[in-house]
Amino acid sequence: MSRNPIDEVLHAKSAAVVGATPSGNWGGGGFLAGLIQYGFKGNIYPVNPKYTEAMGLKVYPTLLDIPEQVDYVISCVPARLALGILEQAVQKGAKTTHLFTARLAETGRTEGIETEKKILELAKKSGMRLIGPNCMGVYAPAHGISFHADFPKESGPVGLVSQSGMLAREIVKNAPFRGIYFSKVFSYGNAIDLNESDFIRYLADDPETSVILCYIEGAKDGPRLFKTLKYAAAKKPVVILKGGRGQSGARATSSHTASLAGSFNTWGALAAQTGAVMADSVEELIDLAATFRFLPSVKGKRVGVAGGAGGSSVLAADGCESAGLDVIPLSDAFRQSLKAQGVSVWDWIGNPADLSIREDESLSVGLMLEMMARDPDFDLLISIMGMPGGAPPKPGLTPEEIFRQQYRLDVTRNKPFMAIVADKSLGVGDDIDFEWKMLCQTRTTLIKLGIPFYPTAQRAAIAAAKAFEYYRYFNR
Amino acid sequence: MSRNPIDEVLHAKSAAVVGATPSGNWGGGGFLAGLIQYGFKGNIYPVNPKYTEAMGLKVYPTLLDIPEQVDYVISCVPARLALGILEQAVQKGAKTTHLFTARLAETGRTEGIETEKKILELAKKSGMRLIGPNCMGVYAPAHGISFHADFPKESGPVGLVSQSGMLAREIVKNAPFRGIYFSKVFSYGNAIDLNESDFIRYLADDPETSVILCYIEGAKDGPRLFKTLKYAAAKKPVVILKGGRGQSGARATSSHTASLAGSFNTWGALAAQTGAVMADSVEELIDLAATFRFLPSVKGKRVGVAGGAGGSSVLAADGCESAGLDVIPLSDAFRQSLKAQGVSVWDWIGNPADLSIREDESLSVGLMLEMMARDPDFDLLISIMGMPGGAPPKPGLTPEEIFRQQYRLDVTRNKPFMAIVADKSLGVGDDIDFEWKMLCQTRTTLIKLGIPFYPTAQRAAIAAAKAFEYYRYFNR
Repeated sequence: MSRNPIDEVLHAKSAAVVGATPSGNWGGGGFLAGLIQYGFKGNIYPVNPKYTEAMGLKVYPTLLDIPEQVDYVISCVPARLALGILEQAVQKGAKTTHLFTARLAETGRTEGIETEKKILELAKKSGMRLIGPNCMGVYAPAHGISFHADFPKESGPVGLVSQSGMLAREIVKNAPFRGIYFSKVFSYGNAIDLNESDFIRYLADDPETSVILCYIEGAKDGPRLFKTLKYAAAKKPVVILKGGRGQSGARATSSHTASLAGSFNTWGALAAQTGAVMADSVEELIDLAATFRFLPSVKGKRVGVAGGAGGSSVLAADGCESAGLDVIPLSDAFRQSLKAQGVSVWDWIGNPADLSIREDESLSVGLMLEMMARDPDFDLLISIMGMPGGAPPKPGLTPEEIFRQQYRLDVTRNKPFMAIVADKSLGVGDDIDFEWKMLCQTRTTLIKLGIPFYPTAQRAAIAAAKAFEYYRYFNR
Repeated sequence: MSRNPIDEVLHAKSAAVVGATPSGNWGGGGFLAGLIQYGFKGNIYPVNPKYTEAMGLKVYPTLLDIPEQVDYVISCVPARLALGILEQAVQKGAKTTHLFTARLAETGRTEGIETEKKILELAKKSGMRLIGPNCMGVYAPAHGISFHADFPKESGPVGLVSQSGMLAREIVKNAPFRGIYFSKVFSYGNAIDLNESDFIRYLADDPETSVILCYIEGAKDGPRLFKTLKYAAAKKPVVILKGGRGQSGARATSSHTASLAGSFNTWGALAAQTGAVMADSVEELIDLAATFRFLPSVKGKRVGVAGGAGGSSVLAADGCESAGLDVIPLSDAFRQSLKAQGVSVWDWIGNPADLSIREDESLSVGLMLEMMARDPDFDLLISIMGMPGGAPPKPGLTPEEIFRQQYRLDVTRNKPFMAIVADKSLGVGDDIDFEWKMLCQTRTTLIKLGIPFYPTAQRAAIAAAKAFEYYRYFNR
């Protein structure tokens, strides 16, 4: 029985980059650099009749000149040359070819549409499988494959299936700022052969992947996607950002990946019936990635919020409530316990706990969060961080130790614990700002501790509410 | 006829800070520092029986010891001492007193509620007006008044009326990252005397203010607020963020500023009938501030988008459409003009214009935007900036000159022109990232050029759609 065509790529014994150039960050040069710099284990063959040497490797005039069989071919040639290259790839026994080659059906031009058809016919006839065309292909750092030289070499448990290569880049480059790294990323473009369902199914079965993110413009096979999502979401969280929701977006998907966007309502129904989670934006996709990556199962919607001042507490309450969480009032028992512990504002403090009303050391964000963590009334904690005017850190402790004490993490992390750290749109020279440096330090510390953070309470609440629905669906 | 009590503060000939301390950034020290460091023109009198000298000034034991009449008093004393201080302020002829003093009705405790009542009775009887209690008071850099020592000394045409002092701080500190500076900011807390309507009315008549922002938890006088908003919005844009929308938010407003939050639906109706613009979050409030501050009147909803890659173009289309803008297709005439200018992808490029499909120099973001600017079909332009892989800047030009050429600003700025520049949640050391530095440079250049920018196309679109509704309401 033949192996999965994606395994044929990840475990290829040899790879050829057709159209490789001696240097440069893009096109052939980029893919070649990706194999070399990320430590691809098999043999690497640059192919280009114009050159003899690239990045220290011998360049072959054509695929047919390579002395051994080639498992994996990356085609970076212009569309008019693609068919010839693919015929050679078949001759060389390639199991899978990735077509970076673009300007095919997505142009809407007869020539491109016809060429794409012929490419697919050749694949069907030969049995060689295709990724693309019009895509960036594979990033799998542990397997030594990358499509950009500046992607992290570090792996993580998040998988990504993206119809757009630039969006995949945006996600892979920005997610590490939230502590998120990737197992495998597939940019799959026009998807004439291998499509979203193949990649999602692969990640569902992949032990190195615990969360699956998707950016999909149009499903190539709706019924199969339905079955695949049902299978995958039952194994691990699957988050989908759908591109091309309205009329203009649908026009854009057609000229981007030759995709039929389909009705957006259908996608809502698809998610509801499979347990997949819909994200409304790239930002929300990353929020949900952080949530499923770092947060334990969210078992209820009753949230305790602490750490903000007056206005931010009011707005956090509004944001949580509009996202569907229950910002429950403090119970009498909770207040009596505050009183018993000498908290002078026991009668005044609420949920959200506005820490700016502190009169003395009897009240702290750590005490509030610990009490909420121990109280079965609360399912989830949100801690607003980075309010100016906090206590200075004790000398001699690492930032993680300070956080562990300040937020009483040994207790509070027994519940899902989300942190709020504001973003700022800095300009040149603004990074000398003390408050900004403090926010950066807070984020770095949270990443080290494995605590997910969000720029606003509302964004945390939306992610928590969606995670809760996911876990409820599967009764986890 | 007596002057407006807010003018009595801004043009006070003498100010006393009761409870001033010799140093420190908060409480009495902060307000004293605000007057001294921001160049308050009148005489400044620190008052505190515990000290004799503060920040180089003589400290008076009581208000009554000050040798001259005192126009403006800032009370930083604990609640139990407030009434006595106010009686002295009346004796000294104070026109207006700002009560930083808190822990009154917002505590929900009988004692605080009673004291607050007596304070108001005294004010009514004496004619002395009050700002607060439980608030930060006034920031008016051109008048030498500030409630934080790290606020900008630079003035701008935006006014802010905020029931929350910490939220006022957040807005004043973050808005400059978007190029926004303030004329006057009023943090007004429990608002037992001067309330939201007084401050909004003042800013409506203030020639130094062209946009009014508000954060309101509860209206003290609904019918008056209705009249005030109708008056103010007809003169200049008024943007309102309502805090305390749901049940839990309403509880939080009560313990924050002793406010009755009221039904949020009422606020929607209030905005619809007065022409005020509702913001849904602090981020949107600042987006709208940038929009009304920098964008010319938005006269229609037909938007042209250019500069993104494939996926970001699709998502920008979705974001614009969901915000209510019309992302119109390119007309035949537009395409013919592209063709006539030698653009090879004239048949393929769309709106949004995905610049990643460029085959050669015949297509550029500047050309697309210029053609959209000249085409009467488009009311508004959105330019997605900061995509990696752009052309390197020409040597010898300033960043502003490069932008002026690259985006053909002499033509394109004749239409409302919005820029999209992504945010990133950086951690320690991440600021060495080249792409991040490029984004910072882009933001700084846009601020210098007076072009508003937004982290996502959807946020720009929401702001543009709301601005359009504002201008349509007043037929501008």
